[in-house]
Amino acid sequence: MSEKKMHTVIFQPAGSRGSVEDGTSVLDASRLLGVDIESICGEKRTCGKCKVRVENGFFEKFGVESSLDHVSVWRPVEAKFFTEERRAEGYRLACVAKVHGDLVVFVPEEARAGGQVVRKAVTDRKINVNPSVKTYYIEMIPPTLHDPLGDYERVCDALKAQHGLDAPILDYRVLLGMPDTLRQAGWKVSVSVWTGGPVPEIVRIAPGTIERSIGLAVDVGTTSVAAYLCDLTTGEVINYDSMMNPQVPYGEDVMSRITYAMSNDDGIHKLQAAIIDGVNTLAARVCEAVGFTHEDILELAIVFNTAMHHCFLGIYPEHLGLAPYAPALHHSINIKARDLGLKFAPGANVFVLPNEAGFVGADNVGVLIAEEPYNKDDRQLIIDIGTNGELIMGNREKLISASCATGPAFEGAQIHFGMRAAPGAIEKIYINPETKEPRFRVIGKEEWSDEMDPETIGAKGICGSGIIDGVAELFKAGIIDKTGKFVKGLDTPRVRKGEQGDEFVLAWANETSVGRDVTVTIKDVRAVQLAKGAMYAGAKIMMNKLGYETLDRVVLAGAFGSFIDREESLTIGMFPDVPVLKAYAVGNAAGDGARMALLDSTKRAEADEWARKVEYVELSVEPTFEREFMYAMHLPHMRDSFPHLKALLAEEALGDLIKG
Amino acid sequence: MSEKKMHTVIFQPAGSRGSVEDGTSVLDASRLLGVDIESICGEKRTCGKCKVRVENGFFEKFGVESSLDHVSVWRPVEAKFFTEERRAEGYRLACVAKVHGDLVVFVPEEARAGGQVVRKAVTDRKINVNPSVKTYYIEMIPPTLHDPLGDYERVCDALKAQHGLDAPILDYRVLLGMPDTLRQAGWKVSVSVWTGGPVPEIVRIAPGTIERSIGLAVDVGTTSVAAYLCDLTTGEVINYDSMMNPQVPYGEDVMSRITYAMSNDDGIHKLQAAIIDGVNTLAARVCEAVGFTHEDILELAIVFNTAMHHCFLGIYPEHLGLAPYAPALHHSINIKARDLGLKFAPGANVFVLPNEAGFVGADNVGVLIAEEPYNKDDRQLIIDIGTNGELIMGNREKLISASCATGPAFEGAQIHFGMRAAPGAIEKIYINPETKEPRFRVIGKEEWSDEMDPETIGAKGICGSGIIDGVAELFKAGIIDKTGKFVKGLDTPRVRKGEQGDEFVLAWANETSVGRDVTVTIKDVRAVQLAKGAMYAGAKIMMNKLGYETLDRVVLAGAFGSFIDREESLTIGMFPDVPVLKAYAVGNAAGDGARMALLDSTKRAEADEWARKVEYVELSVEPTFEREFMYAMHLPHMRDSFPHLKALLAEEALGDLIKG
Repeated sequence: MSEKKMHTVIFQPAGSRGSVEDGTSVLDASRLLGVDIESICGEKRTCGKCKVRVENGFFEKFGVESSLDHVSVWRPVEAKFFTEERRAEGYRLACVAKVHGDLVVFVPEEARAGGQVVRKAVTDRKINVNPSVKTYYIEMIPPTLHDPLGDYERVCDALKAQHGLDAPILDYRVLLGMPDTLRQAGWKVSVSVWTGGPVPEIVRIAPGTIERSIGLAVDVGTTSVAAYLCDLTTGEVINYDSMMNPQVPYGEDVMSRITYAMSNDDGIHKLQAAIIDGVNTLAARVCEAVGFTHEDILELAIVFNTAMHHCFLGIYPEHLGLAPYAPALHHSINIKARDLGLKFAPGANVFVLPNEAGFVGADNVGVLIAEEPYNKDDRQLIIDIGTNGELIMGNREKLISASCATGPAFEGAQIHFGMRAAPGAIEKIYINPETKEPRFRVIGKEEWSDEMDPETIGAKGICGSGIIDGVAELFKAGIIDKTGKFVKGLDTPRVRKGEQGDEFVLAWANETSVGRDVTVTIKDVRAVQLAKGAMYAGAKIMMNKLGYETLDRVVLAGAFGSFIDREESLTIGMFPDVPVLKAYAVGNAAGDGARMALLDSTKRAEADEWARKVEYVELSVEPTFEREFMYAMHLPHMRDSFPHLKALLAEEALGDLIKG
Repeated sequence: MSEKKMHTVIFQPAGSRGSVEDGTSVLDASRLLGVDIESICGEKRTCGKCKVRVENGFFEKFGVESSLDHVSVWRPVEAKFFTEERRAEGYRLACVAKVHGDLVVFVPEEARAGGQVVRKAVTDRKINVNPSVKTYYIEMIPPTLHDPLGDYERVCDALKAQHGLDAPILDYRVLLGMPDTLRQAGWKVSVSVWTGGPVPEIVRIAPGTIERSIGLAVDVGTTSVAAYLCDLTTGEVINYDSMMNPQVPYGEDVMSRITYAMSNDDGIHKLQAAIIDGVNTLAARVCEAVGFTHEDILELAIVFNTAMHHCFLGIYPEHLGLAPYAPALHHSINIKARDLGLKFAPGANVFVLPNEAGFVGADNVGVLIAEEPYNKDDRQLIIDIGTNGELIMGNREKLISASCATGPAFEGAQIHFGMRAAPGAIEKIYINPETKEPRFRVIGKEEWSDEMDPETIGAKGICGSGIIDGVAELFKAGIIDKTGKFVKGLDTPRVRKGEQGDEFVLAWANETSVGRDVTVTIKDVRAVQLAKGAMYAGAKIMMNKLGYETLDRVVLAGAFGSFIDREESLTIGMFPDVPVLKAYAVGNAAGDGARMALLDSTKRAEADEWARKVEYVELSVEPTFEREFMYAMHLPHMRDSFPHLKALLAEEALGDLIKG
């Protein structure tokens, strides 16, 4: 019957302070107090990212006595993430340590989530503007005792007389405000009619004339959410912005979120509430910055992978997470924004793009309708690298798709010094094959590392594009061989034995802001090999299915694709050999697809058509997958010849690196 | 020795008012004021039946400030009967709470002893059963890795293969539960498809086979709410029930509720919440009594007058309450039950019947589609007597409608001893023209008053049908003249001067349960004259509009119409002269119309068609209304001849009562 004891917890350096129940994990406490701590594995105690330091002593400033004795006892699982020295300093995993007394907790810089660089900018695509919401200005004669016609019928008569429109149906929420709006506006209003449903529907009645009607296109990624505010008349992107997916604290990847939903009461509702709140926040932000309000949004078009689709809609994702991975629905669906808790115009609808199959969701359909491979002759591979890798291959004759579990290596997770693409992340690397000395560039700095005073570089870790560069450069410099192993007996202090085995020092401690050498380890190289191997093997199986010997083109979609170096990624064998100029990035094509669906209603039928026509290949049941995967682990590949890459490397006098 | 302080207490919805001593329990106060509150345990505080709600705020109508602070403090014993939420709403046990200040106390339906006699029974009408919701049983093969088709698409494929149905769209709430339902039911489910919208929509997926699909028809009257639970396959009424309209505490009639909505912050939302809660309660009650739950309800069809329509939907009714009385809409509308807060099947829709004009609402459209005067040759008058009187006149050539402010006299209000049709109400009266001695019958007793021991009669007041009888019999017995005045110099102790002027003693104090003589006063006679005069004048103007000299038929719709004596009502001139057998009651035709719209979707188009085709006559702007009203105040009329009535009265040797 006794009530739970409460303890004061203070997080430093943020200074966030609050009371939590006895027994709360430090990670949960951080969420309660709004402190973002990295957590990639979904509290499985495997990623080791949520490192924190429990401070010791009396903190006069807070009036709090903090001590290692105020958290639950050390657990063996923590040993692999901390040296004895670190342990003695008070380091713990936030997901393991439970609060049993007042605490001051220090969150080291590398464990702080957030501050990612926005990489989902707008791509310039030609979009036919034919939106499903159009706004009509009408003027009416007010009712009299001799003409007491109802408000709705009066609006319909005016729409017919002044615009030739047949009576649209009326959304319930619009009805509620209509009598007041009509009278306050002196019977001169702008009526927004949505034609995305089976019959036209009035979704807003606003006083007077409306300068600009707006809609929103949103791309919900596993890690980040991007929103594009569009003018529904001109098609122009008025504003755009992005944010971290607020579901990240519940698990960094799709499977850990599904696990969270399945293993926590109300888990799915928490996940849904987080992303709905996030979209509301983002919508308000993009609107307010340019003089609109979220209630001006007349329609939302949205894409995501299938798991995020289910979490956004609040569909319990258990069945999607288990074989045979059947989604609740493939088809696009229109849902009232209010049914989802989205705060848009009174009658606003949400157009949810269709899913393909398995985890290949509406975002990949967005890529499809943006790139339109079904209208092209070139045999192309489209790679959308997000937290998962999604592949489309084919041309106007046939299209197939697949999803490969690349893991989060390309997003900087599972990498010893991995981090998101945030300031301080090493994003570009070059290693001199002679001296084995690297030079690099960090996000937020203009100059290369060798052009700066070491103390001002401030490297913190390595982001996804950086790690591809790192592995490619280690390979080209002869530091690792094509199996990924470190070459023995090199004369450089940068290659050494570390905690994880062989490692290469990319930045010395004095060049960093974390006070330690930033290294690429043998485990990092393996993680990249696994990720790129999975992707390559998937592509190879797809080529076999289609009877392709070679590809004409590789399109890198997704924000990440825009930042990787195509030559370096070809060097590690991320995808089959093509002329390097035929491999190019198209930016956030998924987001572009959402924008096109918003602005051009004919694209919606196209989305539903192609979501079904694309033939989905379940790679995990392909008998050759294991073998292809093994071959593809090599740099760039164990068996395939890479004529274009070979020619390229020859120009750098590195032609003998690869065979064939 | 100081005198006890006195407080004013008003009980709602009865409206009984009086003064009680400080410290009286609310239960005792109710007894003193003749309000019956259930109390089974004899005030032992164990049965919890005597639940009441203490209202909060200033009640302008009564000039009373009521507050929870005006009753004794909350006692722990009450906690087991109320949730915290109910407590916050002001709920108390009447046997516990003591009066310490002025109070307005609401007695919920379930706490009212000897509730109103349910008078909205089911009429036997031939209804073509063609509902807009049909349920289909399907069986599916579960998904596999080689057939990972999504759930929705799998359902659609089965509907096509097994029933030939093209893919219906999917309601969002149905989608949420679908994956679990399909798997738990072993892929054998019943799919309910609604065709009331522009395209078919899945509104429920239930496990296994469904014995009976049910829908609800509701008639929201100003005073009472009736619900009919219907089998959507057979058309059968499975159960029905009624309750007081929970909006009554906010105003007895339509105008006072509109005033409440306009003069109180959040007034419209309180009115809406009250009726929505009421319909939810009633729905649960009719369902549970016959083994269903409210979540089995697949569709609701509902009628009400225009003001109740607006209050139910939550539309601010200001503009409806002011000239030119334009409603927010005439047309029928489909609204998701969840948008209104109704707890039905996940995707259930509400079909709101269309309004005609002014206060002539969907209930009158219900009467129209039930009676179908547009398919008949007879020139008929349909009178729907509720709290307002609504008139339809015409035949297949032309139909017109009007509304007249009869006031609540026919419902027993504004009558000195008026009461609702509850046990103890005098409902039938005969006065001997010779002796001027009356005999009467009260609701709840089989015998007439002169067949019983006076002490066992227990008369309490006069209900609506009783007051019509009373006035007609006073007139036929020569006690009042055709202007409604009491005839002077009659030799009977029953005619005397009372507080309100001349009055006739219907029941002596010893024949009552209230300990006072029950009388019909001159003011009561005037109230009946005003009510019937307004109705007659309306009918007369309508006859003039249509060029009718006489009517072929008078149809009395509405629950009240079923209980009045057609001869007596013809005698007072409630409607123009017709052969008495051609004036008859059809019961709750408005409710029947709702039921027909629920069960036969072709009736919905008919409703919208005739709601617009009926020509509305705004009586208040008719120049001849005043004059017609004056003529019609006489019993039965000042100028019109009543040949059929005359013949009838001649049989009773009363032929000389009326001229012409």
